[in-house]
Amino acid sequence: MPQTLTLVADIGGTNTRVALAPGGAVDRASIRRFANADHPGLGPVLAAYLATAGNPRCEGACVAVAGPVADGVATMTNLDWTIDRDAVAEATGAARVAVINDLQAQGYALDHLAPGSLRPLVAANCPRKPGAAQLVIGIGTGFNAAPVHETPVGRIVTASECGQMTIPVRSEADLRLMRFLETAHGFACVEDVLSGRGLERLFAFHSSEAGRDDRPAAAAVMAAIAEGADPVATATGASFVRILGTVAGDLALSHLPFGGIHLIGGVARAFTAHYDRFGFAEAFRDKGRFSGFMQEFPVSIVEDDYAALEGCALCLGSGNSE
Amino acid sequence: MPQTLTLVADIGGTNTRVALAPGGAVDRASIRRFANADHPGLGPVLAAYLATAGNPRCEGACVAVAGPVADGVATMTNLDWTIDRDAVAEATGAARVAVINDLQAQGYALDHLAPGSLRPLVAANCPRKPGAAQLVIGIGTGFNAAPVHETPVGRIVTASECGQMTIPVRSEADLRLMRFLETAHGFACVEDVLSGRGLERLFAFHSSEAGRDDRPAAAAVMAAIAEGADPVATATGASFVRILGTVAGDLALSHLPFGGIHLIGGVARAFTAHYDRFGFAEAFRDKGRFSGFMQEFPVSIVEDDYAALEGCALCLGSGNSE
Repeated sequence: MPQTLTLVADIGGTNTRVALAPGGAVDRASIRRFANADHPGLGPVLAAYLATAGNPRCEGACVAVAGPVADGVATMTNLDWTIDRDAVAEATGAARVAVINDLQAQGYALDHLAPGSLRPLVAANCPRKPGAAQLVIGIGTGFNAAPVHETPVGRIVTASECGQMTIPVRSEADLRLMRFLETAHGFACVEDVLSGRGLERLFAFHSSEAGRDDRPAAAAVMAAIAEGADPVATATGASFVRILGTVAGDLALSHLPFGGIHLIGGVARAFTAHYDRFGFAEAFRDKGRFSGFMQEFPVSIVEDDYAALEGCALCLGSGNSE
Repeated sequence: MPQTLTLVADIGGTNTRVALAPGGAVDRASIRRFANADHPGLGPVLAAYLATAGNPRCEGACVAVAGPVADGVATMTNLDWTIDRDAVAEATGAARVAVINDLQAQGYALDHLAPGSLRPLVAANCPRKPGAAQLVIGIGTGFNAAPVHETPVGRIVTASECGQMTIPVRSEADLRLMRFLETAHGFACVEDVLSGRGLERLFAFHSSEAGRDDRPAAAAVMAAIAEGADPVATATGASFVRILGTVAGDLALSHLPFGGIHLIGGVARAFTAHYDRFGFAEAFRDKGRFSGFMQEFPVSIVEDDYAALEGCALCLGSGNSE
């Protein structure tokens, strides 16, 4: 019996990656990347991909989107494409179609990651509880999270927009940062700091605090953090890791992921060498009389770039189509 | 065929309520209340209740607890009772036993509340989405929430400890409040304001801001807020509602409860007449460019005192025993 073929796609803030998944697992050789700015919509991207692949017959299609999805319709802040189940069905001819949040896709991929791609960051003080909830936290173009729950009928990954939550403030300096960020749209959310552009804003804030006015791009900020010679870059790295620790701790209290917290995304990975240096675990556990409780949550970093695509293939396999 | 009988109990910070639920619905005439301080443990309370009821044979027993539950073992900060599945099974002789968080119990009870006990507080700008997630937020002795998800095998209500999350700070006055609260245990969490004792602390803060030093109990604070003659009480009410709006908005972004947010608990209900006056909806929606998005979440108040007991009966009915 031939394997069923699923088309999977991961629409990020800048690029869209498309692949084929025969039998529920992504054929990694089939992955192609499209720059969103070069294409008028998702339909043309999928059509171009399928034409290059020889127009195979796809039984299913699942698209992960870096933005909220309601009733099969996705909204992306910085992209005016129409992304919904109908558009995906039309472009692919697939009978089973799903549109999910990209973090949900990451949640479906957990336990199906490429070998060696889960790097422990904070150990728990107890063995991992099988069947316990997990939490994916994504930090890249934006910030978001997805709680993962095991149920008698399989895994459920719920959606979130927690990047839009109020940024935590613990000090006078944090409050000045909030005021600095509020100039953008009157409200300072988590994503305004914990994202690629957020990192640039955070550097700009610390630069202005130091009486300077330089505003390097995120890659240059990361390089300066690694080098350690610029006190503004060091302050930026320390703030970023401390605020991420606070937010990750708050999300752990909100979702109780005793099965583990998994950081994904380019910015989360770029900080891999700096979490310990800037006290991530200490910030994560800084919850007063609940500090001991916080030690029950292990934290790791996911280093599999294609986990969202794998999650798309697994999501359809678990029957989440309509 | 006789109906199966379930014993249900709701252990709060001060009292424990116990009842019988024949056929999965609570017999409200059977409800009895026990003061926790008068009893050495849960076992003696359940035994005393059953003795008074003529020691009926219970097939199931479900206990809701105002504290975290892990692997069937509950922890209550202010109560040294042993509360776990084994203790409940031993005291009741029931074969099917569950120990759940009290907010989870409230989640199971949604759609099974006493008629007229759901009071709309904030309307959404769109019809309620059937099958969408819901969120219960409890404000009483403590603060907590429980996300409610509908799945192909029925309702799943997950646990949370979001009362321990960082309190939001949006202004210099909020930061002074955080410092005021940190004197207790070095960290200011949501529950330090949004609870009965939190309301007392919030009044004490506004009293000290006004150069006074009075510290009335929560009931007196509520009476003064209703009267409207004391500016410190008015400031307390305004702060409470604004912070609750901010926190409820953050939780909505975290859990996306398009099916509705339901406020429960004595303190949440005590504020019923004051939410509009102090701008709850405005604070809830104050999320910058996501303010429009926030209008998709309806908010209501649950006025059924026995919802947690009903939820216990329904939880066992949906097969959540071990």
